[in-house]
Amino acid sequence: MTVATMLSEIETIGADRSRGGHSRPGYSRVDRELREWFVAHAQRRGLDVQRDRNGIVWAWWRPAGATGPAIVTGSHLDSVPGGGAYDGPLGVASALVAFDELRAEESALERPVAIGVFPEEEGSRFGVACLGSRLLSGAIARDRALALRDGEGDSFADVARRDGLDPELVGRDDAQLSQIGAFVELHVEQGRGLVDLDRPVAIASSILGHGRWRVVVQGQGNHAGTTLMGDRRDPLVAAAAMILAIRDLARATPDARATVGRIEPTPGGTNVIASAVSFWIDLRHPDDLVTAELVARTRDLVASLAAAEGCRATMHEESLSPTVDFDGGLRARLRSALPTAPELGTGAGHDAGVLAARIPTAMLFVRNPTGVSHSPDELVEDADAEAGAAALARVWGALARVPRSAPITGADLE
Amino acid sequence: MTVATMLSEIETIGADRSRGGHSRPGYSRVDRELREWFVAHAQRRGLDVQRDRNGIVWAWWRPAGATGPAIVTGSHLDSVPGGGAYDGPLGVASALVAFDELRAEESALERPVAIGVFPEEEGSRFGVACLGSRLLSGAIARDRALALRDGEGDSFADVARRDGLDPELVGRDDAQLSQIGAFVELHVEQGRGLVDLDRPVAIASSILGHGRWRVVVQGQGNHAGTTLMGDRRDPLVAAAAMILAIRDLARATPDARATVGRIEPTPGGTNVIASAVSFWIDLRHPDDLVTAELVARTRDLVASLAAAEGCRATMHEESLSPTVDFDGGLRARLRSALPTAPELGTGAGHDAGVLAARIPTAMLFVRNPTGVSHSPDELVEDADAEAGAAALARVWGALARVPRSAPITGADLE
Repeated sequence: MTVATMLSEIETIGADRSRGGHSRPGYSRVDRELREWFVAHAQRRGLDVQRDRNGIVWAWWRPAGATGPAIVTGSHLDSVPGGGAYDGPLGVASALVAFDELRAEESALERPVAIGVFPEEEGSRFGVACLGSRLLSGAIARDRALALRDGEGDSFADVARRDGLDPELVGRDDAQLSQIGAFVELHVEQGRGLVDLDRPVAIASSILGHGRWRVVVQGQGNHAGTTLMGDRRDPLVAAAAMILAIRDLARATPDARATVGRIEPTPGGTNVIASAVSFWIDLRHPDDLVTAELVARTRDLVASLAAAEGCRATMHEESLSPTVDFDGGLRARLRSALPTAPELGTGAGHDAGVLAARIPTAMLFVRNPTGVSHSPDELVEDADAEAGAAALARVWGALARVPRSAPITGADLE
Repeated sequence: MTVATMLSEIETIGADRSRGGHSRPGYSRVDRELREWFVAHAQRRGLDVQRDRNGIVWAWWRPAGATGPAIVTGSHLDSVPGGGAYDGPLGVASALVAFDELRAEESALERPVAIGVFPEEEGSRFGVACLGSRLLSGAIARDRALALRDGEGDSFADVARRDGLDPELVGRDDAQLSQIGAFVELHVEQGRGLVDLDRPVAIASSILGHGRWRVVVQGQGNHAGTTLMGDRRDPLVAAAAMILAIRDLARATPDARATVGRIEPTPGGTNVIASAVSFWIDLRHPDDLVTAELVARTRDLVASLAAAEGCRATMHEESLSPTVDFDGGLRARLRSALPTAPELGTGAGHDAGVLAARIPTAMLFVRNPTGVSHSPDELVEDADAEAGAAALARVWGALARVPRSAPITGADLE
């Protein structure tokens, strides 16, 4: 079975006719359909499927004689609103295809293997990216996670309960983590690095530090026709000034990226001056000290631009992840398995970046000819998808064949 | 029965706990509940209730001996999202209370009277304010109205059909208009004119010309982390620059008002550069030539600011109403009935302004101590509400007692 065939099986699930592309929010009906598709494929291959207490689905294979922590690959199936077909599902489909190759090497495997599917990687529903891996690794406190609310006002606690989880049991799970010896995530590249290098597959070097902040600007709601221009305290005017200032700040800071992609005025009527506006800032930089400085300067800008319009503003951190350099020893093993693959950094966050704080992780990127992601324009050519699955099989097998007496990772391997 | 008691009967209908205030979109379940409340009150008073083919509810009273076109009052029951409790319902409740006074003068009435309740005055659902009175008077073409879509993508044709109307029959209705000799709408003031004058009730002199335009900015959707600042075509950055430029233009133009209160990025994800942004401009000026010039200059600003970000933009007129000076003769009769009431203009649009193109119309305003409207902060003191209903009863009775041989309105009365 090819990766392209697999992805074609799910192309209609969560297709978004109004935005284009796919909208697959976490813990939704669409999410469950995608999960069932994965479970069916895993069970057909004889894998032992379990959903853990954080909603992560694991499919284990423990060949006779293979012992110790497993070599795990996988990714996610949720998407941003109107996202592409590859961000997440490519890694899951490639894992299943790679498993079909790995199975032939059964007798050589020293370690068990598994595929993991992580929920709410995009954070499109509850505002915190990589929610599943953050819960598993303890990067988010249970109480904070349970109190998160989606756009409908439903808490994560309630949504998780309706999705079959026990809210009392979500959170850091060391027993689960101890079963994972290494985690390798394959992902569509979200930039043009491989296009420029003319290569189908790369090994990841690092993930840019990044975070999300919610800004709420409070003004005075009023009638659009009767309120004189001089009498206004319009939070949308203040928010517009902030959006421009944040962009200018990022443009003036080498290697920084700042984005406002979501904005919600209240009440949001055409003939109504808004009473309040919420918007979200996504900010990234490879140097965590620079990130901290950018956040501090953004806070100052937000406060002063709100005051200039007679408004008040708050800026609340929703998530913050430091820059991740992937495990050097694991990267050395990947380089041995894929000697011609280049190494590339990325500005995108991933579950592999979150898990890196607790277990050795690595990533593979597959070429995206448009360089565009989080958009229906995201693309992977069929031949590149097969090359990605083959590379994953090679890496996965190489790691699972490492003798039980030898370390999988570690600085001594670099 | 007092106006305050009447309004308290409907205060929970459409109460919006998330935005505050009331959200009462046209043709909704909430709208139907409000309509049923009015119909019950009208029928209890022996009025003959009919819903016409444009969804306007009329309650007629034809005393013995009263003939010819009716003297009509009324207003609307829908609201902006998170609107106040008085914008619309005050005029309907005041009409019912005024009718209780008028009934005592039955034998003196020369002309029939009626109360009209107009649907979708705010245009919050289909984007065109005063949709009911525009259809009745022919100010909007039937085909254009039927093709309007709400935020859910439902057409007005479908929504009207589900609400019991025949889409084939909506539109200009001269037979209905010919039954109306004059229309007087009572409304909460949406500014501080009466507060400054220390008076409870005013006669309207004019309505500012106003219109709505939808701007769509198209850019390139992409990943917030992997897309370099220099490679972006971000439509939300372009929209922010437009919002500031439009505000500056209005501030630099005496008597102009420009508002952006609604903005919708697509797809609207935190970690996604938007692919497109829609926002709506509400623009008003007393001089229709200046309005036209402001629109032309706004079009230029929108085009150049889109181009500066590598985006494209369109600006589409959703509605445009010229400045309305209310009928001079009718105003003279109102001044005779209410000799101490001041005259005030307004920046707000009303069904009375739309109907003014076809029949003589006038308005009364009731003091709003906050001066705020389209917001939960909108307010009318109970004593002022009763003063408003009493003023309406006096005006309504005076007009209905005008001998059948005399004109109700006309320049000769001024």
